[in-house]
Amino acid sequence: MQNQRKYDATHGRVMVAELSKLMDCVREKSPLVHHITNYVTVNDCANICICSGGSPVMTDEVKDVQDMSRIANAVVLNMGTLNQRTVEAMLLAGNVAKKNGIPVVFDAVGAGATPYRNEVAARIIEKVKPEILKGNAGEISFLAGVAGGVKGVDSVSTADDIRGLVLGLARKYGCIVVATGKKDYVSDGKDVYVLMNGSDYQGTVSGTGCMLSSVIGAYVGANGAKVCAVMAAITAFNVAAEHAESVCKGPGSFKVSLFDCLYNLDSMEMAKEARIEKA
Amino acid sequence: MQNQRKYDATHGRVMVAELSKLMDCVREKSPLVHHITNYVTVNDCANICICSGGSPVMTDEVKDVQDMSRIANAVVLNMGTLNQRTVEAMLLAGNVAKKNGIPVVFDAVGAGATPYRNEVAARIIEKVKPEILKGNAGEISFLAGVAGGVKGVDSVSTADDIRGLVLGLARKYGCIVVATGKKDYVSDGKDVYVLMNGSDYQGTVSGTGCMLSSVIGAYVGANGAKVCAVMAAITAFNVAAEHAESVCKGPGSFKVSLFDCLYNLDSMEMAKEARIEKA
Amino acid sequence: MQNQRKYDATHGRVMVAELSKLMDCVREKSPLVHHITNYVTVNDCANICICSGGSPVMTDEVKDVQDMSRIANAVVLNMGTLNQRTVEAMLLAGNVAKKNGIPVVFDAVGAGATPYRNEVAARIIEKVKPEILKGNAGEISFLAGVAGGVKGVDSVSTADDIRGLVLGLARKYGCIVVATGKKDYVSDGKDVYVLMNGSDYQGTVSGTGCMLSSVIGAYVGANGAKVCAVMAAITAFNVAAEHAESVCKGPGSFKVSLFDCLYNLDSMEMAKEARIEKA
Repeated sequence: MQNQRKYDATHGRVMVAELSKLMDCVREKSPLVHHITNYVTVNDCANICICSGGSPVMTDEVKDVQDMSRIANAVVLNMGTLNQRTVEAMLLAGNVAKKNGIPVVFDAVGAGATPYRNEVAARIIEKVKPEILKGNAGEISFLAGVAGGVKGVDSVSTADDIRGLVLGLARKYGCIVVATGKKDYVSDGKDVYVLMNGSDYQGTVSGTGCMLSSVIGAYVGANGAKVCAVMAAITAFNVAAEHAESVCKGPGSFKVSLFDCLYNLDSMEMAKEARIEKA
Repeated sequence: MQNQRKYDATHGRVMVAELSKLMDCVREKSPLVHHITNYVTVNDCANICICSGGSPVMTDEVKDVQDMSRIANAVVLNMGTLNQRTVEAMLLAGNVAKKNGIPVVFDAVGAGATPYRNEVAARIIEKVKPEILKGNAGEISFLAGVAGGVKGVDSVSTADDIRGLVLGLARKYGCIVVATGKKDYVSDGKDVYVLMNGSDYQGTVSGTGCMLSSVIGAYVGANGAKVCAVMAAITAFNVAAEHAESVCKGPGSFKVSLFDCLYNLDSMEMAKEARIEKA
Repeated sequence: MQNQRKYDATHGRVMVAELSKLMDCVREKSPLVHHITNYVTVNDCANICICSGGSPVMTDEVKDVQDMSRIANAVVLNMGTLNQRTVEAMLLAGNVAKKNGIPVVFDAVGAGATPYRNEVAARIIEKVKPEILKGNAGEISFLAGVAGGVKGVDSVSTADDIRGLVLGLARKYGCIVVATGKKDYVSDGKDVYVLMNGSDYQGTVSGTGCMLSSVIGAYVGANGAKVCAVMAAITAFNVAAEHAESVCKGPGSFKVSLFDCLYNLDSMEMAKEARIEKA
């Protein structure tokens, strides 16, 4: 309650009560979310997208992606298992989306880990200009120009001032930036929000970050590329994770319950359990 | 009982009692099912194939597929995440299967959604001549020449007369046609059957259609490309889905239980719970 | 207890008590395990790697793999769904690993099933010289020069004397050889060990062999490419499987519980339940 009051009092722009409407809208519209994502977590992305209220489609063939992106409500690009063929597909899909006013979510998985990933991340950001730029704290730190901090595709260090990094990146690229971690930071270039829902079990399952990107895709697909939609997506996912933690026995059953809990999550309940503050 | 009597009385050709024998045969023979399928749902396809009694193998390298198809009992081609390389592999694998009398199941995922998918579907149907042509109602409608109705790879509309469409397609191509949906329609070009088992939860899990194709692969791999084998596969899968629904808490636990329930399904129980009618 | 005493008495080299230390070390170091593996079971590999204490990363782009392998603690190569592009990536990653003293685990999935797989397996073994060579009994039999025995990628026959085969292969290639099955055989070229933990449910889930390779990757990544580390990995995985069997209802819930049980497994408990003998 403290957090909610604080948040409401300071901003008013996005009232916690509004979160439930954003969630309801996803379920009503069932937005088509075109994913070009990695083959490790793609099945979980598809299923969490459904559980969030969206309708996922995956295709990465150069001859196919433009026609699919054109009819989508949102496009999610994730470079987890990038290759030269799919990078080309991401650029094509992203550009078609932009021309048609369709929001693009870019999950810069592994940025900072290898030169090729760095080059691809820079290229996608420059050429596609995604509405939502997302990574874990280490990836976002790298993209913001802070050296070090990436081990494989999992973040092992965070910048001292993640708040400043997401704000700076959001301003630099004119987009919404999301840095995930124990706490998640979101900025639209004006304000920075810290979101505090979630479960430690999220770190024990591969692809919870990718899954979150799919949920964000569904939320911006239904509600537009607004910071409140991104925060509603993160909060819905993380509240579901809290519920899943309360019934699971380990990482395997946590993931199963995460799908159940997001699917079953009441939108008013989500809004009430939200813990969001202005950072 | 009503449904069963009606079915038996009208046809006799496939008695409901025969369903259990078709199922037993899969478990006895453990047919090798070579899949060239999408990377979204491939793990679920492999596992449901095992749970149905089959033995799955996945390979899509052009240099490898012909040797694998040659030793398989059935070949499943699924264009969910098609690309130019795997389309070539599908054509090679399909042709080898045909030359060796091995049944081919083609799941035309996303037919109607994009021009490339339409072109590939037409090419596979023409060049491979699959014994089983399968899609959701929207995909089958498209293949039958009915415009509209496909949103991404999920069907959003059905033709007014799906019965006529599956019959017409089956006659046109001389194959067995399956159109899935709330009710599933199967035709061999002579008769049309409507299968009414299943759970609404199937729509909340990505890839239940793909999984069904794998189960059909196992059934025709063991029993031959007969309409009764296809109906036994669909019924086994859908009865297992009903059982799973009765114990699940949402889409995540539904999928887990679907594997358990198909694996544990008694063949006589399946036959007794079957709801099949001539359409 | 009988098994443990027998083992300890005969060798002393690897005491059962040491198993728990090997397990603890994985959890302490959280080794980065770079996988180039198949798209069927890759998600399960990532998650079981986490549950074993490791940190998985998957990338197979030629431009990316060398930089990733260089910073990894172990590299796992799995040719389940090999293609020309990923085979090249495996060779590059494997060579970088070798130059940097990073252990390489090679899972020769489907060796013996097709000429292309045979050629690729031979090439990887010759060019990379993996520290750990792993397959099911049929695959290992093929690699050891025993004809027949492979049906798809699942082993259907075993050599009469699997003991001699793993010993011979380990001597021929100067590596550790693992042949999985009802009982698992491990040899370092001097001794042969038979490991008897495990559950019949492992045969009902696609990719338990692949998952084991990921666990072995984590164990040798943390402990070095030692035969005791390989045995600890196999035993941890198989004891977790026994625990999962005791709570599951079928293949679906078995897999979910396998993740939970490995994650929750106490290292001393694992060591006490180990059933290892010198063969």
